[in-house]
Amino acid sequence: MISKNQIKYVHQLEMKKYRQREGLFVAEGPKVVGDLLDAGFKPSQLYSTEQWQRAGFESNIVTDEELRKVSFLQHPQQVLAVFPIPQRQEACKPMGLSLALDGVQDPGNLGTIIRVADWFGIDTIYCSPDTADAWNPKVVQATMGSIARVQMIYTDLEQLISNTSLPVYATLLDGNDIYQQELSSEGIIVMGNEGNGISAPIRQLVSRKLLIPAYRIGAESLNVAIATAIVCSEFKRRS
Amino acid sequence: MISKNQIKYVHQLEMKKYRQREGLFVAEGPKVVGDLLDAGFKPSQLYSTEQWQRAGFESNIVTDEELRKVSFLQHPQQVLAVFPIPQRQEACKPMGLSLALDGVQDPGNLGTIIRVADWFGIDTIYCSPDTADAWNPKVVQATMGSIARVQMIYTDLEQLISNTSLPVYATLLDGNDIYQQELSSEGIIVMGNEGNGISAPIRQLVSRKLLIPAYRIGAESLNVAIATAIVCSEFKRRS
Repeated sequence: MISKNQIKYVHQLEMKKYRQREGLFVAEGPKVVGDLLDAGFKPSQLYSTEQWQRAGFESNIVTDEELRKVSFLQHPQQVLAVFPIPQRQEACKPMGLSLALDGVQDPGNLGTIIRVADWFGIDTIYCSPDTADAWNPKVVQATMGSIARVQMIYTDLEQLISNTSLPVYATLLDGNDIYQQELSSEGIIVMGNEGNGISAPIRQLVSRKLLIPAYRIGAESLNVAIATAIVCSEFKRRS
Repeated sequence: MISKNQIKYVHQLEMKKYRQREGLFVAEGPKVVGDLLDAGFKPSQLYSTEQWQRAGFESNIVTDEELRKVSFLQHPQQVLAVFPIPQRQEACKPMGLSLALDGVQDPGNLGTIIRVADWFGIDTIYCSPDTADAWNPKVVQATMGSIARVQMIYTDLEQLISNTSLPVYATLLDGNDIYQQELSSEGIIVMGNEGNGISAPIRQLVSRKLLIPAYRIGAESLNVAIATAIVCSEFKRRS
C-alpha cells in the first residue's frame, strides 16, 4: 500500500529543491535499485510489487496500478526506492584519474557519462554547480546503476583545479592529437557544456590540451558523452 | 503561408509507412537543413520564417505560429524542409570501413551512431530491416546534419556479410581485447540491438571478435552508441 501523501512526497523529489531539502533521491527498477543496495545504499522508502524480493529488505507491497502512480517511468519496473543522497566529501583531493564536468546540461548525457566512468574504472566525477543534478531521476535511470559505483562531487571546479598538482586535460579546438600524446595514469579530464564547451576560467587552467581529430572535413562535432568515452578509452588502454 | 493540408501532409511523414509510400523525410533547423542542401539534397518543400534565407532556394515564408504548428520540435528553428529519401543502392559492395547495425532500436542511439560515423569518416552504414528508420524525424535531428554525409543502406545483413571478402568485426563477450588486436583499414563493424546484442545468424558470420575490456568488475555494459564510438576510434587512430 502507498498513500496519496507518500505518492506526493516521492513526486516532489523530481524537483532539485526538494531533493536538496530532503537529502533524498529516487531510483527505480531491479537493476538500478539492486546496484544501489549492493553498494551499501540504505533505502529510506521501498515500494515494490510482489514480483520483487530481496533478502534483508522489507518493502511496502504495492499493486501495479499504485506503482504506476508513484513511478516516474513510462513503464514502471517492479520496484521504486528512495535513498539518502551521499554526503559530499568536502576535503576530497583528486587522486588517480577523475572527470570534471563543467556545465554538462543534458540529463541523458550526464547519465551516459557516469556509465562510461563506471566502465573505465573512474571513481570520482567532479561537477560544477551548473552541471545537471546527478540525483535527478532521469539521470539516475540513465546510469543503469552505475551511479552506485561512481562518486559524484559538486564543487567549485576552479578552486579544485587550482589546488591540484595533477595534470588537467581537456579536448579543445587548439589541442594536440590525443592519439599522439602522452597521457598520464593520474589526472583530471575536464569535459564542457554541450553548446559552449568549457568555461573561460576553467579553460585557462587546462595544462594539457587534447584534440580528437575528425576524419571528415565538415563533420559535426562529437556529443559530449561520446567524446568522454573516446578520451577515457585512450587513457585507459595505455594504463 | 502553409495550408492545413500541407501541415497534415508533413505530420504524416512522422510515420514510417507514409515516409516509405511518399519516399520523403523531414528535416528541421538551419544546421540540419543547411547540411542537407550543402550535400546536394533537393527539397521538395521548404517552409521558413523570414529569418532564414539561402541563396538559390525559395521557401514558403511562414509565421512563427505556423512553423510551430508544422514542426516536430518543441522549439522550432526557422526552417523545415521535406526531402526525397535517397534511393537505395542495390548493388553497392562494402568498401573501406563501414558499419552494419543489426537491430539498433533507439532513434537517439541511431542518430548518435550516424554522427560518430561522420566524425570518423565512415561513408556507409548498413542497417538490418529491423533497425530504427534513419529517416524518422527524431533520428534526422539527432544526427545534427551528419545524415547528409553518411549513406544509409537498409538491407539483408546476412546476405551482405555472407558475400563479402572483407573481415567482419563485432564486440562480443568472448572477443579479444580490442586494444591488443590488429585491426584492418577495411572491414565491416557490426553493432547489435540494445538489449539482445547481435542476432544469432549474424554472430556466426563474425570473423574477428573484439571486446572492449571493462576496468571495473560489475560495471554496467556500454550503450551501443558509446561502444560504436570507442571501436571506431580504435580503428581510425591506427589507420
